[in-house]
Amino acid sequence: MDIPVTSGDPAGFSVSTDQKTMSTELKPGAVVYGLGETVRGINKRGWLYRSFNSDDPHHEEGKHSLYASQNFIMIDDGDSCCGYFIDHPGTIEWDIGYTDPDMLTITFIDMDAYVYVITGDEPYAIIKSLRELTGPSYIPPKWAFGYGQSRWGYKTADDIREVLKGYDELEIPIDTIYMDIDYMKDFKVFTTDPERFPDLKGFVSEMKEQGIHVAPNTDPGVKIQPGYDVYEEGVEGGYFCKKEDGSLFAAAVWPGMVHFPDFLNSEARKWFGDKYRYMTDAGVDGFWNDMNEPALFYTNEHLSEVYAGIDELRQGEMDIWGFFKFKELMDSIDNNPEDYRRFYHDLDGVKVRHDKVHNLYSFNMTRAASEGFKRNDPDKEYMLFSRASFIGAHRYGGVWTGDNMSWWSHLLLNIKQMPSLNMTGFLFSGADTGGFGADTTEDLMMRWVEFSMFTPLFRNHSALGTREQELYRFKRTDDFKHLIELRYALIPYIYTEFVKAADDGGMFIKPLAFEYRSDARCREIEDQLLIGDSIMIAPVYEQNSNGRYIYLPERMKMLRFRGAEDYDEEMLDAGDHYVKAALNEVLVFVRPGKSLPMARVARRVRDINFDNLKNISC
Amino acid sequence: MDIPVTSGDPAGFSVSTDQKTMSTELKPGAVVYGLGETVRGINKRGWLYRSFNSDDPHHEEGKHSLYASQNFIMIDDGDSCCGYFIDHPGTIEWDIGYTDPDMLTITFIDMDAYVYVITGDEPYAIIKSLRELTGPSYIPPKWAFGYGQSRWGYKTADDIREVLKGYDELEIPIDTIYMDIDYMKDFKVFTTDPERFPDLKGFVSEMKEQGIHVAPNTDPGVKIQPGYDVYEEGVEGGYFCKKEDGSLFAAAVWPGMVHFPDFLNSEARKWFGDKYRYMTDAGVDGFWNDMNEPALFYTNEHLSEVYAGIDELRQGEMDIWGFFKFKELMDSIDNNPEDYRRFYHDLDGVKVRHDKVHNLYSFNMTRAASEGFKRNDPDKEYMLFSRASFIGAHRYGGVWTGDNMSWWSHLLLNIKQMPSLNMTGFLFSGADTGGFGADTTEDLMMRWVEFSMFTPLFRNHSALGTREQELYRFKRTDDFKHLIELRYALIPYIYTEFVKAADDGGMFIKPLAFEYRSDARCREIEDQLLIGDSIMIAPVYEQNSNGRYIYLPERMKMLRFRGAEDYDEEMLDAGDHYVKAALNEVLVFVRPGKSLPMARVARRVRDINFDNLKNISC
Repeated sequence: MDIPVTSGDPAGFSVSTDQKTMSTELKPGAVVYGLGETVRGINKRGWLYRSFNSDDPHHEEGKHSLYASQNFIMIDDGDSCCGYFIDHPGTIEWDIGYTDPDMLTITFIDMDAYVYVITGDEPYAIIKSLRELTGPSYIPPKWAFGYGQSRWGYKTADDIREVLKGYDELEIPIDTIYMDIDYMKDFKVFTTDPERFPDLKGFVSEMKEQGIHVAPNTDPGVKIQPGYDVYEEGVEGGYFCKKEDGSLFAAAVWPGMVHFPDFLNSEARKWFGDKYRYMTDAGVDGFWNDMNEPALFYTNEHLSEVYAGIDELRQGEMDIWGFFKFKELMDSIDNNPEDYRRFYHDLDGVKVRHDKVHNLYSFNMTRAASEGFKRNDPDKEYMLFSRASFIGAHRYGGVWTGDNMSWWSHLLLNIKQMPSLNMTGFLFSGADTGGFGADTTEDLMMRWVEFSMFTPLFRNHSALGTREQELYRFKRTDDFKHLIELRYALIPYIYTEFVKAADDGGMFIKPLAFEYRSDARCREIEDQLLIGDSIMIAPVYEQNSNGRYIYLPERMKMLRFRGAEDYDEEMLDAGDHYVKAALNEVLVFVRPGKSLPMARVARRVRDINFDNLKNISC
Repeated sequence: MDIPVTSGDPAGFSVSTDQKTMSTELKPGAVVYGLGETVRGINKRGWLYRSFNSDDPHHEEGKHSLYASQNFIMIDDGDSCCGYFIDHPGTIEWDIGYTDPDMLTITFIDMDAYVYVITGDEPYAIIKSLRELTGPSYIPPKWAFGYGQSRWGYKTADDIREVLKGYDELEIPIDTIYMDIDYMKDFKVFTTDPERFPDLKGFVSEMKEQGIHVAPNTDPGVKIQPGYDVYEEGVEGGYFCKKEDGSLFAAAVWPGMVHFPDFLNSEARKWFGDKYRYMTDAGVDGFWNDMNEPALFYTNEHLSEVYAGIDELRQGEMDIWGFFKFKELMDSIDNNPEDYRRFYHDLDGVKVRHDKVHNLYSFNMTRAASEGFKRNDPDKEYMLFSRASFIGAHRYGGVWTGDNMSWWSHLLLNIKQMPSLNMTGFLFSGADTGGFGADTTEDLMMRWVEFSMFTPLFRNHSALGTREQELYRFKRTDDFKHLIELRYALIPYIYTEFVKAADDGGMFIKPLAFEYRSDARCREIEDQLLIGDSIMIAPVYEQNSNGRYIYLPERMKMLRFRGAEDYDEEMLDAGDHYVKAALNEVLVFVRPGKSLPMARVARRVRDINFDNLKNISC
């Protein structure tokens, strides 16, 4: 690509090298899009965001960082729009009308960044140019568009067989069962517990015979344990991150003390990528990379500081400020900023302190896996997605939106995150449906299924200790069955539109404002989305609601689905409507001149007939 | 009142004394109202609530308890409704369609409760009967309906003068400035720091001359400090809560180690109520009782257990389960359930362990203050509200909804809490406008002001360390000024309707469904409220929104206010509408045949002319 290179101020911005800022005025009504996976709305105006990948399960409005750093924004004042892609691996702060409602200020710690100014007539053109710069989106295998069940807590092969039985007995479609950290021996990456999973290969093929893909979790940290092959190889090959003095950096994660593979080093990347053969040789074809911000539970260095602090406070009676100091010490233990300054990467000869390039870690872990897969079996397709991410990693795999909660507000957050993720190329994405932390309710799960059925990645996942949420455990299992069947009937549409978006540098899930440029109302609509080229959705995300308002930018055909073959339809004029949607009903709107193809119901993606489709047209 | 008394199962419920439960089936579509100040919606269906007053600033959907226990629910299936008031001071769990979406199960720890079954033709009749049972609502002085500014962090009299100057210079109306814990000497209740507030009486009267009421915070815990009069008197009088062995119970709160007045004892209550004279004699006439769940930062007993646990974990290298154990120990320090079992009350001769009657503590603190005021100056009116509360305490004072966050979702929560609080008689109530914890934004503050201007208690309050949010600090101070002026113009209406509701056993803030019984749509509307008899409001609570949907159950006149004298009006037909509301615009709907009286703008409540009102009629 021929990109004119200039130095000095990027178009529209004024730069202060003293303050390490670049800033611009925001016109009244200008919308700021972008930043991928963050808190708050599709329009990012009115908050301070920080690019610093963080393992923080509290995805609240007051947070500045989640797991991802996708350094792209687009300012759209209605008349014209302009995109800004900032290629920088360290911390960036985005003050988007937070300090001053009319100013956007971007602050760096190290002002060593490429700023790509992306012009275009309209948003899609800018998105397409961004994709040309950052590369095409990853396309997963077709089966990965099936429904998946996951839970932290499936400890044995039998647990997984039980889950499959639960779904199969009720004939609820399913394609994937995920294995969280429990399957490993002492949480050691690239191992299985020999007692609980005595024959991985046999188990994977037993599942495959039933049309089920088993998708294990992979964490980066390698347990420090002499005799453990991955550890031994890593030490021998010099593949782990080091401290300033050259000794190996250690921190605690699930397995206890671990070393971290230096994914920024090409040799280490190759080594780790090849290690996935432990799984792929056993027939595994689906993976999720987790804990790769990287999450640090603690380091011994910082823990000693904490202990010393506690000991000091324990001398004499604690006063109230001592108590707060004590609490503060405790809160400082995991993901401590200082700990991210304790280790270094070897960028093929260049030594870089981790915090300077923090956001690249997960990018290169996903890259390691993807390149490993390609190297070892170029023709095979794998499902691969990650918790942490960085702009560009969409070439290698997808993302899920991390450890959300079973909250209605997180269903709404999920709705708002999806188009932003799509802007930066992360098309294969989705949330932990039903919520990971906290206890779900049947109605929340049903409404979330009704949204997630439109996200490419559709996984039900929950945390140990929370209420069990496999769909067969609820009361209204028939409704769930019909909803999952609807997803399967829609897979030909979803898959085709997804691949089209990936091939064209486009988006699969889009805000209305990108499509209906001249309709000012669309600029504020954040709870209706376009899915592919033919349809708009309007999910219900409020407890005890049996309907909602929708705005139609043009006349459309409304489909009120209760299942793939149970729906009513109605033509609705452009404008505002209040529409009923009972707990088991999904609202889909077919755009004029378009049609929605639907397959016959199947219980596995492989059994879906992509050729014999029924079309619902408007 | 003549209440028929029966034993056995309360109407519609089946009781299990083994399980200590009472349960009933919920019809499809039945709405469950009540519980006062909790998380989630006006319709409580779909969650598990727990009556156990808790100092927990994380008011998230996943929580079961907030600061209050208001043990009243009303089940309304559209055809008929029935209320249930459970008179019980201990922990109660309300599983309202959580475990089974169609069942309501109430679980006791001690099944020693009076259940009042309140029948009536419609909701207001039930509310009125409940009020007859529990007593009339507290009515504050007129000035308490003015706007108030508060912040944890005003350390000196000069700080408060500075705040007043900020408001007065911009001519933004204000009546009250609150003093948080900072004003005390070492956080000792009924003291002022002699250096920072050298002349309380002089300062209060200096403020009063400018029309400003100073409202200090009162915490229950009395610092253990020989020589400190309140401590000495408490020990001497035997007014403090004791441990099982008769020694005084101690826990740490703001002042460090304190004893807790035994508000359940009439002597102690009288003593503490009289102590307020330290303030009232200096001319103070506004109070807020805080930390009265009671909050316990820690006890030495439990802290030793925590230390012992830490020491055990420190022997040898910590593994990951040790780490979690460590975190769990830390999280157990404040408000530890075991600590609530370590102390006892003397109910005028009957010794009761605290946890059995936990929810009565704040009730009796507010009662102590209220009875003290009456005893010492029967004719004087005081403003009084509390953080923790229990059904019945509405006779003595109001409540604020505790330590919320500067989140849009908490503005919405505030909207949903208000009618529920009104059901149980807590008419004088409101939230920390702009949010207490976390950092606010100018737009959130403006939208929150636009809602709080309709709540009887209208206070801007924020926490130490968060972004400063006095209205004069923002950019669009003119908009704020006009909005606060609008509040002042509405005070005659608000005050009159409030007093009417208090006198009639009615509600000041009401859900639409209570008024429009036959309109099924109203049963799901939780973001529009009736304020008094004449108007409906429809607050905007989404960032970057410049409009919203509204449903009109009947033809109404819409007023779009930008200030008391700057508004447009439009007649709108019954039905659904999308209505514009720019950031500085407030939507008010006048009901047919009703009118909204408005006063001329004033900068203090005392200067409002209640007689010369302009009426906007529909």
